[in-house]
Amino acid sequence: MSHRSDAVHLPWGQMSRQGLGNQGVHTQPMEMMLHLKQAIEKHMGQLATRHQQQDLVPEEERPYQAPGEQEALLGNLMYQLVSLLQSGATGGPGFQLSCPSLDVKGDAGGGQRQWAQSSRQPAQPGYQLNDPEATFVSQHLSSRGIDISASYQASFQDYNMYQRDKYHEEQNTLGFINLGLSENKLCLDLMTERLSQSDMNVLEDVLLQYPDWSGQPFLRKEVAQFLTCYCKVPAQLDPENVVVLNGCSSVFSTLAMVLCDPGEAFLTPTPFYGGFVFSSSLYSKIELIPVHLDSESTDANPCPFQLTVDKLERALLEATLAGKKVRGLILINPQNPLGDVYSRDLLEECLKFAKRYNLHVIVDEIYMLSVFDESITFHSVLSMESLPDPNRTHVIWGTSKDFGISGFRFGVLYTHNKEVVSAVSSFGYLHGISGIAQYKLCRLLQNQEWIDTVYLPTYRARLQKAHRYITKKLKALGIPFLNRGSGLYIWINLQVYLDPCTFEEELLLHHRFLDNKLMLSRGKTYTCKEPGWFRIVFAEKPLLLKQAMHRFYQVLEEQKQCLRVKQLESAQRE
Amino acid sequence: MSHRSDAVHLPWGQMSRQGLGNQGVHTQPMEMMLHLKQAIEKHMGQLATRHQQQDLVPEEERPYQAPGEQEALLGNLMYQLVSLLQSGATGGPGFQLSCPSLDVKGDAGGGQRQWAQSSRQPAQPGYQLNDPEATFVSQHLSSRGIDISASYQASFQDYNMYQRDKYHEEQNTLGFINLGLSENKLCLDLMTERLSQSDMNVLEDVLLQYPDWSGQPFLRKEVAQFLTCYCKVPAQLDPENVVVLNGCSSVFSTLAMVLCDPGEAFLTPTPFYGGFVFSSSLYSKIELIPVHLDSESTDANPCPFQLTVDKLERALLEATLAGKKVRGLILINPQNPLGDVYSRDLLEECLKFAKRYNLHVIVDEIYMLSVFDESITFHSVLSMESLPDPNRTHVIWGTSKDFGISGFRFGVLYTHNKEVVSAVSSFGYLHGISGIAQYKLCRLLQNQEWIDTVYLPTYRARLQKAHRYITKKLKALGIPFLNRGSGLYIWINLQVYLDPCTFEEELLLHHRFLDNKLMLSRGKTYTCKEPGWFRIVFAEKPLLLKQAMHRFYQVLEEQKQCLRVKQLESAQRE
Repeated sequence: MSHRSDAVHLPWGQMSRQGLGNQGVHTQPMEMMLHLKQAIEKHMGQLATRHQQQDLVPEEERPYQAPGEQEALLGNLMYQLVSLLQSGATGGPGFQLSCPSLDVKGDAGGGQRQWAQSSRQPAQPGYQLNDPEATFVSQHLSSRGIDISASYQASFQDYNMYQRDKYHEEQNTLGFINLGLSENKLCLDLMTERLSQSDMNVLEDVLLQYPDWSGQPFLRKEVAQFLTCYCKVPAQLDPENVVVLNGCSSVFSTLAMVLCDPGEAFLTPTPFYGGFVFSSSLYSKIELIPVHLDSESTDANPCPFQLTVDKLERALLEATLAGKKVRGLILINPQNPLGDVYSRDLLEECLKFAKRYNLHVIVDEIYMLSVFDESITFHSVLSMESLPDPNRTHVIWGTSKDFGISGFRFGVLYTHNKEVVSAVSSFGYLHGISGIAQYKLCRLLQNQEWIDTVYLPTYRARLQKAHRYITKKLKALGIPFLNRGSGLYIWINLQVYLDPCTFEEELLLHHRFLDNKLMLSRGKTYTCKEPGWFRIVFAEKPLLLKQAMHRFYQVLEEQKQCLRVKQLESAQRE
Repeated sequence: MSHRSDAVHLPWGQMSRQGLGNQGVHTQPMEMMLHLKQAIEKHMGQLATRHQQQDLVPEEERPYQAPGEQEALLGNLMYQLVSLLQSGATGGPGFQLSCPSLDVKGDAGGGQRQWAQSSRQPAQPGYQLNDPEATFVSQHLSSRGIDISASYQASFQDYNMYQRDKYHEEQNTLGFINLGLSENKLCLDLMTERLSQSDMNVLEDVLLQYPDWSGQPFLRKEVAQFLTCYCKVPAQLDPENVVVLNGCSSVFSTLAMVLCDPGEAFLTPTPFYGGFVFSSSLYSKIELIPVHLDSESTDANPCPFQLTVDKLERALLEATLAGKKVRGLILINPQNPLGDVYSRDLLEECLKFAKRYNLHVIVDEIYMLSVFDESITFHSVLSMESLPDPNRTHVIWGTSKDFGISGFRFGVLYTHNKEVVSAVSSFGYLHGISGIAQYKLCRLLQNQEWIDTVYLPTYRARLQKAHRYITKKLKALGIPFLNRGSGLYIWINLQVYLDPCTFEEELLLHHRFLDNKLMLSRGKTYTCKEPGWFRIVFAEKPLLLKQAMHRFYQVLEEQKQCLRVKQLESAQRE
């Protein structure tokens, strides 16, 4: 069986090569998109004026179209363009771009239903917007199904493109290099070797049968011991407080389900990991209220993107005044995308703040072993002598990042709150892990000698080396970045490449990277309030990283040239 | 590492042995429960009378307690008893049974919140209903978290008991034998052998990394080929129409999410697999409308529990008149718990019925290879030359039953509807399977020679033998059952052991089985409209099955004796 031969290799590389100039396959529709957006905003403006003029007309006679519906239409138009883009990428016959009727006909679900058309698979033959059957087909999904599908397409279109056209040093040198996905590929050799050893392949009956839905007891016991050791916990953790599910996103999503009712909220210092937003959109429908951190250093903000309790308190007050029901706070430590490792004092202050206002705290420590700067010490909340509010403190960890085995789909919840353990365990029924994977994970975590003497030293040395390489490159290019000593990524500032410095331009730059088969992730997906920030992952093999930085450099050169032309044209007009 | 030494062995065996008489550890609280129920019904009756008398009192002055709240209180009291039961089972300090205040104080969520107390872990030291701190603790969960936790405890308390105290022929002969769980343990030897072969343990990088969320392409390709072959599909199935998730329940749950909005409904011929009810309670919140099938043979119902389109049509009409929005129909073929294998004609009629009313059809074919009567042919809906409504026909399959590897957590969706493929794929983010498990599953399904010449002949011969054994025993006991030739279970009628024939008595009998460390599943959990039916799983190793039938016989003897005493007492009173 060959995996790679199964991959759908599409005529994308050729298209991309044609489009390496300023009018790339991504850039062109993006510009169309901006154009459309402007046109619709103008239309909305006109509508608003009309409504003001209609104030004397009885309400039920007004041909009113709610702003929400207009937004949906706008979204739909933009989405069609994205689909157009995608249809080029997948080589199918593609959408015939048609302008949907602006008449929403007062259907309450109309705005949402519009998305149905967008979520169609453009690669399906004859599956086109102007096909009468297609309109019928779009009625197959529920409203939430349509929303979720649209949200998935929007969040994962780059990812799905990457899955179908990955770079390979021999078989697909024109494929995508993904420095947008936080994946640790530095120790695949070590992990493959360890996971192939004979002790890993035991097959007891219990592994083939229905499990304990909170996780196999042998694995939960091992997780408790592992966390006790690596989180430096004063007393042995209790396996009964452990729940294991298929991935940390599942743990986060189920925590959100059992701690919040729909519409209730968590505070999230921002920029923060965008996966939480998508997870929330699938099931829990909780709101994530950003606590915006500033990049500028001032007296009140001694360090760029500095988290302070004062900022949390202000955000909580503001949200509460706006009538929102805030149930908790999410901390990511080490932080993603900033790479910050929180000091023990800051952690404790945050937990005390949460206790003061009866807030839950979800602490995502998924990068806890990925601190590569030896001068920095990671402090798990589990290491505290006494937690300010143990029943409201819930820790997430997994092996996806620290051990680079995201394909295992393994996430851990540790909480002292028995109610939360029980409620989250209920979801094990739908978020369970294969018994054989649970067994291997148990063996892996059990082997602390190998972890301490082989794995961690090698992993951290390679992380450090990759970090040195990428920061050297960034310095040479004069690109500002945060130097924080943890994580698989670095938070960089490309504002100087945007003119004007807007999220639209950030998106255009992002698409220029895509045109060059390089994926980064842009600040907007981390709810960063300032345009121009990107996260670049460096936990890649050296050769691939070199290739990626070559593409990176090329794009920035293109972008510089493009900006120069733009400035020249603008100067000529003045 | 020893799994079994991790299992919590509790003083339950002793308790149970003390309780093998009529006053078993389960039976006693059950009787208390009935007593309480009567007391509360009486109280409700009094309240209703009082309200009638209060008709002249202004509404806002009445000390009114809504029937729904009363139901919640009733549920709570019953639940406390169940917890009491459980605390005995787990050997913890247990609940101190306290009667909660009947004053719900007009809190809209009051009824629900009552459950919070019930969802607590009784085994937690000091964690008792009359502990003031406990009331505080119960406020940690969201309303939906409380509901879900309660629903989980109610659905899985027997299962969790079993997980902690499984029968083992050497190490735990007093443990639970579970003939309530539909698990195929007949071929663990073959599966272990196959899965241990060297081709299974390949570890390519792609298996350790983030996957395609609809499933690894190599696995989807293999699933398409496998289904094409074993479902006898006229044309090759398309891998792009396959989505794989971690278990068939995840597939069902996500289908329910994307086809229905909350409160919308699916028709389900009844009795039917109870897992759908629990799955729906976690996320999708769809309604499952029972289409009750009768056990009695009549002219209109030539065969016990006969499904007909006429019954579907009537149920649809009734539901529609009641204002329900019916979006589809669920068929399980081969049926669970009846064991029916639908004829091609009936299948086609059902699909045409669905098309007539624009209904989706979810066809769960998870037992498709578990037909052991050679005179019966299974027809997959995928085998039809042309589906009446391909865009609304969605097939579920997995390896849990047919290959006896439920621990793999593997479920498949096949649908021609690209929108549904895309929408369900979104959920792969939270319902993904380990890469290594995907690889092994691919190898397993690929090996058709082994499946055809080794696995299936052995499996079916063993199923047949176990079925012969159990039906011989049932005949000897004079117990009526359905003889339908498929599945891992048999649907038996124990009505003659209930007096009166009510669901309360069915539950009491169920608990008498538990007292004797035997689990069956009772008709109520399949929404059967007649009390007294049970499903008994026979896909067990011969020795264990023999031991189980010994316990089964003992319980029925006890029950007979108990009925005789009851009848004698009743005769004396008259």
